Amino acid sequence: MAERRIIIRPLTKEGFASFGEVIETAGAHHYAINKGMTERFHDLATVEIGGDNGRTLVSLFRGKPYALPLTLDLLERHPLGSQAFYPLSGRPWLSIAAPDAGGKPGTPHAFLCGPDQGVNIRRNTWHAVLTPLHAVSDFLVVDRGGDGNNLEEYTLSEPWLVVES
Amino acid sequence: MAERRIIIRPLTKEGFASFGEVIETAGAHHYAINKGMTERFHDLATVEIGGDNGRTLVSLFRGKPYALPLTLDLLERHPLGSQAFYPLSGRPWLSIAAPDAGGKPGTPHAFLCGPDQGVNIRRNTWHAVLTPLHAVSDFLVVDRGGDGNNLEEYTLSEPWLVVES
Repeated sequence: MAERRIIIRPLTKEGFASFGEVIETAGAHHYAINKGMTERFHDLATVEIGGDNGRTLVSLFRGKPYALPLTLDLLERHPLGSQAFYPLSGRPWLSIAAPDAGGKPGTPHAFLCGPDQGVNIRRNTWHAVLTPLHAVSDFLVVDRGGDGNNLEEYTLSEPWLVVES
Repeated sequence: MAERRIIIRPLTKEGFASFGEVIETAGAHHYAINKGMTERFHDLATVEIGGDNGRTLVSLFRGKPYALPLTLDLLERHPLGSQAFYPLSGRPWLSIAAPDAGGKPGTPHAFLCGPDQGVNIRRNTWHAVLTPLHAVSDFLVVDRGGDGNNLEEYTLSEPWLVVES
């Protein structure tokens, strides 16, 4: 059992700002289109597409749920592009990200995301794998395809225990 | 009341192929990632980003519903980029698209999309505005930002009536 603990906090734009953007209508710039029938909450994520032959991918991820507390022993980052996740199954989920500390992950932060909150993880930012809660859940994902190695993984020698409180 | 009628048909990949892609897990190429915890349904839409300073936008659209039958008198297209819509509110919705006929929209097709079906409308392809049904509905949208005029609208002199059968 991991000794080091991380307490899950609610996802907020401010709390997540050093890792990327929160994709949500709350607080977003918006305006009416389509003769007032549609409200556009505009440009909520900075999609970064780098490397050779980089292009934007739209994919669906279907994730099995994790139980809490969970043992976190692996973080990853994508040096060539950002990665956005938006939940489709109406359930809360976890986003875990970490600052860089000299080429390795620093202390992670665990965010409880609401069923109407997505995130866009900035290029080359440490994060955990997709972490649904409670049940199998689908996500829409916008990330980067193209040539080159876009995955760096880091296995922690000493895991973290991610807890609700 | 419009005299010309279009009957709504279920959305299928084959039926929509000339207008773009259906974004759905059914029939999609997929593979396991994250030590088997996540299934990735990969690369479901060709995101086209053209023009000067083009970049991928991720936005949320909140659309008021339309009642059926609906009178269709406006189509539009985006010459500089594709536009993907994925439903977030668990309700069916309509996607209406039309072939080009000499710089004007030809006969439209109306597709009934399931609550787990998105579409990616190809660059410069005629389509109607976002058409939710039954209740206010949210959509995740992936389209193009940047310089230049990315909107062409065409008002039909003789509208179509879009009907359920």
